[in-house]
Amino acid sequence: MKRIAIDMDGVLADVYHQFFKMDEAEFGQRRKLQDVEGKPEREGFPHIMEYVNTKGFFRTAPLIAGCVPIVKEINQQYDLYIVSAAMEFPLSLPEKLEWLAEHFPFITWQQIVFCGSKQIIRADIMIDDHFRNLDSFTGDTSLLFSQPHNIQSDPGRHQRVNNWEEISKILL
Amino acid sequence: MKRIAIDMDGVLADVYHQFFKMDEAEFGQRRKLQDVEGKPEREGFPHIMEYVNTKGFFRTAPLIAGCVPIVKEINQQYDLYIVSAAMEFPLSLPEKLEWLAEHFPFITWQQIVFCGSKQIIRADIMIDDHFRNLDSFTGDTSLLFSQPHNIQSDPGRHQRVNNWEEISKILL
Repeated sequence: MKRIAIDMDGVLADVYHQFFKMDEAEFGQRRKLQDVEGKPEREGFPHIMEYVNTKGFFRTAPLIAGCVPIVKEINQQYDLYIVSAAMEFPLSLPEKLEWLAEHFPFITWQQIVFCGSKQIIRADIMIDDHFRNLDSFTGDTSLLFSQPHNIQSDPGRHQRVNNWEEISKILL
Repeated sequence: MKRIAIDMDGVLADVYHQFFKMDEAEFGQRRKLQDVEGKPEREGFPHIMEYVNTKGFFRTAPLIAGCVPIVKEINQQYDLYIVSAAMEFPLSLPEKLEWLAEHFPFITWQQIVFCGSKQIIRADIMIDDHFRNLDSFTGDTSLLFSQPHNIQSDPGRHQRVNNWEEISKILL
Protein backbone atom coordinates (compact mmCIF):
# COMPACT_ATOMS: atom_id res chain seq x y z
CA MET A 1 0.00 0.00 0.00
CA LYS A 2 1.53 3.30 -1.06
CA ARG A 3 2.05 5.95 1.56
CA ILE A 4 0.71 9.45 0.95
CA ALA A 5 1.49 12.60 2.94
CA ILE A 6 -1.16 15.32 2.65
CA ASP A 7 -0.54 18.89 3.78
CA MET A 8 -3.18 20.83 5.74
CA ASP A 9 -2.90 24.60 5.13
CA GLY A 10 -3.61 25.47 1.52
CA VAL A 11 -4.54 21.88 0.63
CA LEU A 12 -7.26 20.85 3.09
CA ALA A 13 -7.76 24.11 4.99
CA ASP A 14 -8.56 27.27 3.03
CA VAL A 15 -6.16 29.64 4.75
CA TYR A 16 -6.46 32.25 1.99
CA HIS A 17 -10.12 32.64 2.95
CA GLN A 18 -8.86 33.58 6.42
CA PHE A 19 -6.13 35.88 5.06
CA PHE A 20 -8.58 37.82 2.87
CA LYS A 21 -11.13 38.08 5.67
CA MET A 22 -8.72 39.29 8.36
CA ASP A 23 -6.89 41.61 5.98
CA GLU A 24 -10.20 43.19 4.94
CA ALA A 25 -11.26 43.56 8.57
CA GLU A 26 -8.01 45.40 9.27
CA PHE A 27 -7.68 47.59 6.18
CA GLY A 28 -11.38 48.14 5.41
CA GLN A 29 -11.14 47.02 1.81
CA ARG A 30 -11.06 43.58 0.25
CA ARG A 31 -7.79 42.82 -1.49
CA LYS A 32 -8.14 41.48 -5.04
CA LEU A 33 -6.92 38.03 -5.99
CA GLN A 34 -4.60 39.47 -8.62
CA ASP A 35 -2.93 41.58 -5.92
CA VAL A 36 -1.70 38.48 -4.10
CA GLU A 37 -1.16 36.04 -6.97
CA GLY A 38 2.43 35.09 -7.52
CA LYS A 39 3.56 36.61 -4.23
CA PRO A 40 4.72 34.77 -1.13
CA GLU A 41 1.87 34.77 1.40
CA ARG A 42 3.80 37.14 3.66
CA GLU A 43 4.09 39.67 0.83
CA GLY A 44 0.49 39.36 -0.30
CA PHE A 45 -0.83 40.04 3.20
CA PRO A 46 1.55 42.31 5.12
CA HIS A 47 0.19 41.44 8.59
CA ILE A 48 -0.14 37.72 8.02
CA MET A 49 2.02 36.79 11.01
CA GLU A 50 -0.49 38.42 13.32
CA TYR A 51 -3.35 36.59 11.63
CA VAL A 52 -1.84 33.11 11.92
CA ASN A 53 -1.03 33.80 15.57
CA THR A 54 -4.61 34.84 16.29
CA LYS A 55 -6.64 32.37 18.35
CA GLY A 56 -9.14 30.63 16.10
CA PHE A 57 -7.31 31.25 12.83
CA PHE A 58 -6.75 27.55 12.14
CA ARG A 59 -9.78 26.27 14.06
CA THR A 60 -12.25 28.25 11.93
CA ALA A 61 -10.61 27.83 8.52
CA PRO A 62 -13.09 26.53 5.93
CA LEU A 63 -12.43 23.37 3.95
CA ILE A 64 -10.91 23.52 0.49
CA ALA A 65 -13.76 22.58 -1.84
CA GLY A 66 -14.46 18.89 -2.26
CA CYS A 67 -11.61 17.50 -0.20
CA VAL A 68 -13.46 15.45 2.44
CA PRO A 69 -15.01 12.64 0.35
CA ILE A 70 -11.84 12.27 -1.73
CA VAL A 71 -9.57 12.12 1.32
CA LYS A 72 -11.96 9.55 2.77
CA GLU A 73 -11.57 7.39 -0.32
CA ILE A 74 -7.79 7.91 -0.42
CA ASN A 75 -7.74 6.73 3.20
CA GLN A 76 -9.22 3.41 2.04
CA GLN A 77 -6.73 2.87 -0.75
CA TYR A 78 -3.51 4.37 0.64
CA ASP A 79 -1.47 4.52 3.84
CA LEU A 80 -2.51 8.10 4.53
CA TYR A 81 -0.82 10.66 6.76
CA ILE A 82 -1.75 14.28 7.37
CA VAL A 83 1.56 16.14 7.60
CA SER A 84 1.48 19.77 8.70
CA ALA A 85 4.46 22.04 9.20
CA ALA A 86 2.71 23.34 12.29
CA MET A 87 5.62 23.67 14.69
CA GLU A 88 6.29 27.32 13.76
CA PHE A 89 2.95 28.23 15.34
CA PRO A 90 2.61 26.32 18.63
CA LEU A 91 -0.86 27.81 19.23
CA SER A 92 -2.03 26.05 16.11
CA LEU A 93 -1.35 22.53 17.39
CA PRO A 94 -4.51 21.96 19.46
CA GLU A 95 -6.59 23.94 16.92
CA LYS A 96 -5.39 21.75 14.08
CA LEU A 97 -6.17 18.58 16.02
CA GLU A 98 -9.69 19.82 16.76
CA TRP A 99 -10.17 20.89 13.16
CA LEU A 100 -9.13 17.48 11.86
CA ALA A 101 -11.36 15.69 14.39
CA GLU A 102 -14.33 17.80 13.25
CA HIS A 103 -13.88 17.52 9.50
CA PHE A 104 -11.99 14.22 9.14
CA PRO A 105 -13.24 12.03 12.00
CA PHE A 106 -12.06 8.92 10.10
CA ILE A 107 -8.41 9.98 10.45
CA THR A 108 -6.79 8.54 13.58
CA TRP A 109 -4.12 10.13 15.78
CA GLN A 110 -1.64 7.59 14.42
CA GLN A 111 -1.99 9.28 11.00
CA ILE A 112 -1.20 12.85 12.07
CA VAL A 113 2.26 14.44 11.94
CA PHE A 114 3.13 17.97 13.05
CA CYS A 115 6.63 18.96 12.08
CA GLY A 116 8.83 21.90 11.25
CA SER A 117 10.73 20.69 8.22
CA LYS A 118 9.18 18.01 6.01
CA GLN A 119 12.58 16.69 4.95
CA ILE A 120 12.21 13.90 7.49
CA ILE A 121 9.01 12.54 5.89
CA ARG A 122 9.20 9.17 4.14
CA ALA A 123 6.32 8.56 1.76
CA ASP A 124 5.59 7.70 -1.88
CA ILE A 125 3.28 10.60 -2.67
CA MET A 126 3.17 14.13 -1.25
CA ILE A 127 0.50 16.78 -1.82
CA ASP A 128 1.60 20.26 -0.79
CA ASP A 129 1.26 23.86 -1.93
CA HIS A 130 4.83 24.86 -1.03
CA PHE A 131 7.91 24.15 -3.12
CA ARG A 132 10.04 24.16 0.04
CA ASN A 133 8.26 20.97 1.12
CA LEU A 134 8.03 19.26 -2.26
CA ASP A 135 11.58 20.02 -3.40
CA SER A 136 13.18 17.92 -0.64
CA PHE A 137 10.67 15.09 -0.99
CA THR A 138 12.24 11.76 -1.96
CA GLY A 139 9.09 9.84 -2.95
CA ASP A 140 7.84 9.07 -6.46
CA THR A 141 5.01 11.56 -6.88
CA SER A 142 4.87 15.16 -5.73
CA LEU A 143 1.68 17.09 -6.40
CA LEU A 144 1.76 20.90 -6.21
CA PHE A 145 -1.64 22.09 -5.06
CA SER A 146 -2.48 25.40 -6.69
CA GLN A 147 -2.73 28.34 -4.35
CA PRO A 148 -2.35 32.04 -5.18
CA HIS A 149 1.27 32.18 -3.99
CA ASN A 150 2.38 29.40 -6.40
CA ILE A 151 -0.04 29.96 -9.29
CA GLN A 152 2.48 31.74 -11.51
CA SER A 153 5.35 29.34 -10.86
CA ASP A 154 6.54 26.59 -13.17
CA PRO A 155 5.84 23.39 -11.21
CA GLY A 156 9.14 21.95 -12.42
CA ARG A 157 9.46 18.25 -11.59
CA HIS A 158 6.23 18.36 -9.59
CA GLN A 159 2.76 17.85 -11.03
CA ARG A 160 0.36 20.74 -10.58
CA VAL A 161 -3.17 19.98 -9.37
CA ASN A 162 -5.74 22.75 -9.29
CA ASN A 163 -8.41 21.12 -7.17
CA TRP A 164 -9.41 17.91 -5.42
CA GLU A 165 -11.18 16.52 -8.49
CA GLU A 166 -7.87 16.51 -10.31
CA ILE A 167 -6.25 14.71 -7.37
CA SER A 168 -9.06 12.17 -7.44
CA LYS A 169 -8.45 11.48 -11.13
CA ILE A 170 -4.74 10.90 -10.51
CA LEU A 171 -4.96 8.80 -7.35
CA LEU A 172 -8.31 6.99 -7.36
CA MET B 1 25.42 14.82 7.18
CA LYS B 2 23.59 11.82 8.63
CA ARG B 3 20.10 12.37 9.94
CA ILE B 4 19.27 11.19 13.46
CA ALA B 5 15.81 10.91 15.03
CA ILE B 6 15.82 11.02 18.83
CA ASP B 7 12.80 10.01 20.90
CA MET B 8 11.70 12.09 23.92
CA ASP B 9 9.92 9.93 26.52
CA GLY B 10 12.25 7.32 27.99
CA VAL B 11 15.26 8.66 26.07
CA LEU B 12 15.49 12.37 26.95
CA ALA B 13 12.65 12.68 29.49
CA ASP B 14 12.65 10.38 32.51
CA VAL B 15 9.01 9.33 32.44
CA TYR B 16 9.61 6.39 34.81
CA HIS B 17 10.53 8.93 37.48
CA GLN B 18 7.04 10.38 36.98
CA PHE B 19 5.37 6.96 36.91
CA PHE B 20 7.00 5.88 40.20
CA LYS B 21 6.20 9.20 41.89
CA MET B 22 2.54 9.35 40.86
CA ASP B 23 1.98 5.65 41.52
CA GLU B 24 3.44 6.05 45.02
CA ALA B 25 1.29 9.13 45.67
CA GLU B 26 -1.78 7.10 44.72
CA PHE B 27 -1.05 3.76 46.38
CA GLY B 28 0.99 4.97 49.37
CA GLN B 29 3.93 2.68 48.73
CA ARG B 30 6.84 2.95 46.32
CA ARG B 31 6.81 0.21 43.71
CA LYS B 32 10.14 -1.64 43.34
CA LEU B 33 12.08 -1.55 40.08
CA GLN B 34 11.94 -5.33 39.79
CA ASP B 35 8.13 -5.16 39.94
CA VAL B 36 7.98 -3.23 36.68
CA GLU B 37 11.00 -4.61 34.80
CA GLY B 38 10.14 -6.60 31.71
CA LYS B 39 6.53 -5.42 31.74
CA PRO B 40 4.85 -3.02 29.32
CA GLU B 41 4.54 0.37 31.03
CA ARG B 42 0.75 0.00 31.23
CA GLU B 43 1.14 -3.29 33.14
CA GLY B 44 3.85 -2.02 35.47
CA PHE B 45 1.76 0.98 36.52
CA PRO B 46 -1.96 0.15 36.35
CA HIS B 47 -3.18 3.78 36.34
CA ILE B 48 -0.57 5.07 33.92
CA MET B 49 -3.15 6.46 31.49
CA GLU B 50 -4.39 8.84 34.17
CA TYR B 51 -0.84 9.94 34.93
CA VAL B 52 0.13 10.78 31.36
CA ASN B 53 -3.12 12.70 30.95
CA THR B 54 -2.42 14.76 34.09
CA LYS B 55 -1.46 18.38 33.48
CA GLY B 56 2.24 18.82 34.13
CA PHE B 57 3.22 15.18 33.64
CA PHE B 58 5.43 15.90 30.61
CA ARG B 59 6.33 19.48 31.57
CA THR B 60 7.91 18.45 34.90
CA ALA B 61 9.63 15.24 33.79
CA PRO B 62 13.32 15.27 34.78
CA LEU B 63 16.05 14.76 32.21
CA ILE B 64 17.58 11.35 31.61
CA ALA B 65 21.07 11.60 33.10
CA GLY B 66 23.73 13.19 30.93
CA CYS B 67 21.67 13.71 27.79
CA VAL B 68 21.92 17.51 27.31
CA PRO B 69 25.63 18.00 26.52
CA ILE B 70 25.70 14.91 24.31
CA VAL B 71 22.59 15.96 22.35
CA LYS B 72 24.18 19.39 21.98
CA GLU B 73 27.27 17.82 20.44
CA ILE B 74 25.21 15.48 18.24
CA ASN B 75 23.37 18.58 17.02
CA GLN B 76 26.70 19.91 15.73
CA GLN B 77 27.65 16.75 13.89
CA TYR B 78 24.33 15.38 12.66
CA ASP B 79 21.07 16.54 11.07
CA LEU B 80 19.16 16.12 14.32
CA TYR B 81 15.39 15.75 14.82
CA ILE B 82 13.47 15.21 18.02
CA VAL B 83 10.67 12.80 17.12
CA SER B 84 7.99 12.15 19.70
CA ALA B 85 4.93 9.93 19.29
CA ALA B 86 3.00 12.60 21.14
CA MET B 87 -0.24 12.63 19.17
CA GLU B 88 -1.93 10.07 21.46
CA PHE B 89 -1.87 12.68 24.22
CA PRO B 90 -2.88 16.06 22.77
CA LEU B 91 -2.42 17.77 26.15
CA SER B 92 1.24 16.86 25.97
CA LEU B 93 1.97 18.88 22.81
CA PRO B 94 2.44 22.35 24.36
CA GLU B 95 4.09 20.82 27.44
CA LYS B 96 6.62 19.00 25.30
CA LEU B 97 7.42 22.15 23.34
CA GLU B 98 7.97 24.09 26.57
CA TRP B 99 10.07 21.27 28.02
CA LEU B 100 12.29 21.19 24.94
CA ALA B 101 12.65 24.98 24.93
CA GLU B 102 13.74 24.89 28.58
CA HIS B 103 16.21 22.02 28.43
CA PHE B 104 17.33 22.12 24.78
CA PRO B 105 17.22 25.78 23.75
CA PHE B 106 19.63 25.05 20.89
CA ILE B 107 17.00 22.87 19.15
CA THR B 108 14.87 24.87 16.71
CA TRP B 109 11.20 24.37 15.84
CA GLN B 110 12.30 23.07 12.44
CA GLN B 111 13.86 20.07 14.22
CA ILE B 112 10.79 18.94 16.17
CA VAL B 113 8.32 16.30 15.00
CA PHE B 114 5.21 15.17 16.86
CA CYS B 115 3.61 12.14 15.30
CA GLY B 116 1.48 9.10 16.02
CA SER B 117 3.26 6.35 14.14
CA LYS B 118 7.00 6.71 13.46
CA GLN B 119 6.76 4.63 10.27
CA ILE B 120 6.76 7.84 8.26
CA ILE B 121 10.15 8.98 9.59
CA ARG B 122 13.09 9.00 7.19
CA ALA B 123 16.46 9.09 8.91
CA ASP B 124 19.76 7.20 9.14
CA ILE B 125 19.83 6.69 12.89
CA MET B 126 17.00 6.30 15.40
CA ILE B 127 17.24 6.25 19.19
CA ASP B 128 14.11 4.95 20.88
CA ASP B 129 13.06 2.81 23.83
CA HIS B 130 10.16 1.11 22.05
CA PHE B 131 10.45 -1.81 19.64
CA ARG B 132 7.25 -0.66 17.90
CA ASN B 133 9.14 2.41 16.69
CA LEU B 134 12.49 0.78 15.91
CA ASP B 135 11.10 -2.30 14.16
CA SER B 136 9.59 -0.29 11.29
CA PHE B 137 12.62 1.99 10.97
CA THR B 138 14.33 1.81 7.58
CA GLY B 139 17.60 3.61 8.41
CA ASP B 140 21.01 2.05 9.04
CA THR B 141 21.32 2.25 12.81
CA SER B 142 18.64 1.69 15.42
CA LEU B 143 19.60 2.13 19.05
CA LEU B 144 17.34 0.65 21.73
CA PHE B 145 17.58 2.86 24.80
CA SER B 146 17.30 0.74 27.94
CA GLN B 147 14.22 1.36 30.02
CA PRO B 148 12.57 -0.99 32.53
CA HIS B 149 9.92 -2.15 30.05
CA ASN B 150 12.51 -3.36 27.51
CA ILE B 151 15.35 -4.38 29.83
CA GLN B 152 14.65 -8.12 29.63
CA SER B 153 14.14 -8.21 25.87
CA ASP B 154 16.62 -9.41 23.29
CA PRO B 155 17.36 -6.26 21.25
CA GLY B 156 17.37 -8.36 18.07
CA ARG B 157 18.66 -6.38 15.09
CA HIS B 158 18.83 -3.21 17.18
CA GLN B 159 21.80 -2.15 19.29
CA ARG B 160 21.10 -1.72 22.99
CA VAL B 161 22.41 1.41 24.72
CA ASN B 162 22.11 1.72 28.48
CA ASN B 163 22.85 5.40 28.92
CA TRP B 164 23.92 8.54 27.08
CA GLU B 165 27.64 7.84 27.58
CA GLU B 166 27.25 4.72 25.49
CA ILE B 167 25.45 6.73 22.80
CA SER B 168 28.27 9.27 22.87
CA LYS B 169 30.84 6.51 22.30
CA ILE B 170 28.92 5.20 19.30
CA LEU B 171 28.03 8.51 17.63
CA LEU B 172 30.67 11.09 18.59
